[in-house]
Amino acid sequence: MSLIVQKYGGTSVGTVERIHRVADNVERACKDGHQVVVVLSAMSGETDRLLRLAHEMAPLPDERELDMLLSTGERVTIALLAMALRSRHLDARSFTGRQVGILTDSAHTKARITKVTAERIRESLTRGVIPVVAGFQGINQQSDVTTLGRGGSDLTAVALAASLKADRCVIFTDVDGVYTTDPNIVPSARRIDKISYEEMLEMASLGAKVLQSRSVEFAAKFNVPLEVNSSFKEGKGTLVTREDRDMEAVAVSGVTGDRNQAKVTIVGVPDKPGIAAGLFGPVAKANILVDVIIQNMSQAALTDISFTIPRVDVNKAVPLIQDVARTIGAKSVSVTEAIAKVSLVGVGMRSHSGVAAKMFEVLSQEGVNIIMISTSEIKISCVIDEKYLELAMRSLHSAFGLDQPRNDDRAAK
Amino acid sequence: MSLIVQKYGGTSVGTVERIHRVADNVERACKDGHQVVVVLSAMSGETDRLLRLAHEMAPLPDERELDMLLSTGERVTIALLAMALRSRHLDARSFTGRQVGILTDSAHTKARITKVTAERIRESLTRGVIPVVAGFQGINQQSDVTTLGRGGSDLTAVALAASLKADRCVIFTDVDGVYTTDPNIVPSARRIDKISYEEMLEMASLGAKVLQSRSVEFAAKFNVPLEVNSSFKEGKGTLVTREDRDMEAVAVSGVTGDRNQAKVTIVGVPDKPGIAAGLFGPVAKANILVDVIIQNMSQAALTDISFTIPRVDVNKAVPLIQDVARTIGAKSVSVTEAIAKVSLVGVGMRSHSGVAAKMFEVLSQEGVNIIMISTSEIKISCVIDEKYLELAMRSLHSAFGLDQPRNDDRAAK
Repeated sequence: MSLIVQKYGGTSVGTVERIHRVADNVERACKDGHQVVVVLSAMSGETDRLLRLAHEMAPLPDERELDMLLSTGERVTIALLAMALRSRHLDARSFTGRQVGILTDSAHTKARITKVTAERIRESLTRGVIPVVAGFQGINQQSDVTTLGRGGSDLTAVALAASLKADRCVIFTDVDGVYTTDPNIVPSARRIDKISYEEMLEMASLGAKVLQSRSVEFAAKFNVPLEVNSSFKEGKGTLVTREDRDMEAVAVSGVTGDRNQAKVTIVGVPDKPGIAAGLFGPVAKANILVDVIIQNMSQAALTDISFTIPRVDVNKAVPLIQDVARTIGAKSVSVTEAIAKVSLVGVGMRSHSGVAAKMFEVLSQEGVNIIMISTSEIKISCVIDEKYLELAMRSLHSAFGLDQPRNDDRAAK
Repeated sequence: MSLIVQKYGGTSVGTVERIHRVADNVERACKDGHQVVVVLSAMSGETDRLLRLAHEMAPLPDERELDMLLSTGERVTIALLAMALRSRHLDARSFTGRQVGILTDSAHTKARITKVTAERIRESLTRGVIPVVAGFQGINQQSDVTTLGRGGSDLTAVALAASLKADRCVIFTDVDGVYTTDPNIVPSARRIDKISYEEMLEMASLGAKVLQSRSVEFAAKFNVPLEVNSSFKEGKGTLVTREDRDMEAVAVSGVTGDRNQAKVTIVGVPDKPGIAAGLFGPVAKANILVDVIIQNMSQAALTDISFTIPRVDVNKAVPLIQDVARTIGAKSVSVTEAIAKVSLVGVGMRSHSGVAAKMFEVLSQEGVNIIMISTSEIKISCVIDEKYLELAMRSLHSAFGLDQPRNDDRAAK
């Protein structure tokens, strides 16, 4: 018998029929002899409906009140699922974030969990009761409702799994796992059986949308085995877990592509100490995330600095950067939006040399010009012309053997 | 400066526009120099929507889970109103039943209030904050959400007014007060300026639907001045308060009609001690409310017993009564549904004699046959043929001068 935390997202509980299917799922896990704790999101569409109402009340709705409003969505789904389970003669009970002791700071709409007591869950489990918990919400020290921001329900599930020392935390969603790359772009993309927390974090930050970074970080910190699986079909999912020898056997685990990029170049920057700080300080203060940075010495004592920012921030960032450029005596600022970032991720890079060289070679063979390069221990990113993104993803996916089954696939899970 | 608890019902907060009008109302009371505590119901229709969802999950949804589900409706409206007030630069804060310390027993869906702490309300008021409180809900000792049943939001408002020793509790609804009789039946019905708790209780139990008996009882017990007023137009409402000399000046305050009645007659009951207990015991156990009872000696040692029950309970009650009739050796059971009850209510009856005699005379002049009679200190009810109900109400309303303005109308309020 193992203890499993199951989390179902908004589309999985989006209709009455789907909630009944979640009840089927929970029932099956119980009949298989597992102890189950269920965490739910609000019905898909409900949060948007409530937000629309809020914006009809006030142009900038108060954030504490938004949390009071938005936290109702999960209370509806947990009550409905508990009813469905009870009518199947399973002893289920719904609990709010407060009732299971999800304590947070007071940063309304994006609160951070400070403590998880999970007392009523423990007590329920000893009595054979299935706890059905509202995700996404907690309470602060004043006993006011808070919400955890994007991906908050995943975080609730992982935090409970950590506190309960659960054997596994399964995130049921509308896809059946994490893929070697985006299947919409590369049809030969394959579901990954097992991936390390670190790789998953890189994939998440590089644009793979299955899991939010916060939940993966939390799972890594408390070593919670995290499974991504489909709530609509039975089968294997992807297990996100501690790095093991199997994982190091392959150099590259996944290929990601990110179009949300724009390249800014400041031309003719006087090459003096302190220039970079003077430039990136104001940008950081405006909450604009600078990603890849390169610096080219072009003429004596003058340098060009290029960097990427999220494309959505261009309108906010460019006037600011132009100001800064003027202040530091640079010649001009240019912006290119038609770029994209293609990345390889894999813990195996640590032991496999030559991954970068092979990547550059593959891209050059396809006639893809590399504009910028950035690397970390387990990741290589190249900024390229946007029009080549699909081509680059497909050719890298194939060149690194990701469209072939891994040797360890049978052994995994 | 006085402290006023304002309660708005479901139709008053049924749309975004109406919530904005409630905000207008609250703002006006604040600008008039009052301290205001607001209690809200769920948006009209929301409770039905949630109940439909519940019944799609389970044929008999669990009651604790129903409370978890239904209590979300008020949380939505309090958050929305607080947003609207804050965007007008009024410092408002929403609070759940739990947050203001509405403690109840564990009778889910019909919980009784055991204690009201109202700590956060008091603290808010001293800081100049307008508390916006979710009606209809509390928590039990296990810290589980409970709901207070029909008219529960009124009860929340009255209980808070009692705990805060408020100067007045105003129930804003879709009518502008309590009427001398049903204006849909008697067009000359007049709004009553002032009425006693006792009269209001009789009117409520006799079918006047403006206020639920529970709230009036609570208000009477703690002597909370209760006002019924319209949330849609400005003007005087009805004040429900302690009996005073003005009220005794008139013999009759109101006329009510109740069609939800059926008459059951058990013919040929052996006239032995204990028969009544043997009969009404099982009926009471089945939670069927017996109202008027009369007993006619028809033959030596045999008696006929007639009584009224709610018409909606006929199908449940009749088989039960037939069983009992057989057991006690009665001859037969007959049921008449086409009856109604017309009643006069007034604290003045205590000092004005002859009200009953006049009532019987008025009915007889109109050719209305009286089937049964029941009286209390401040009420006389006659069971009559249903077809005469409107006629009886109109003629009594006029005969007791209720379509004329009261002498004390100008002085009242």
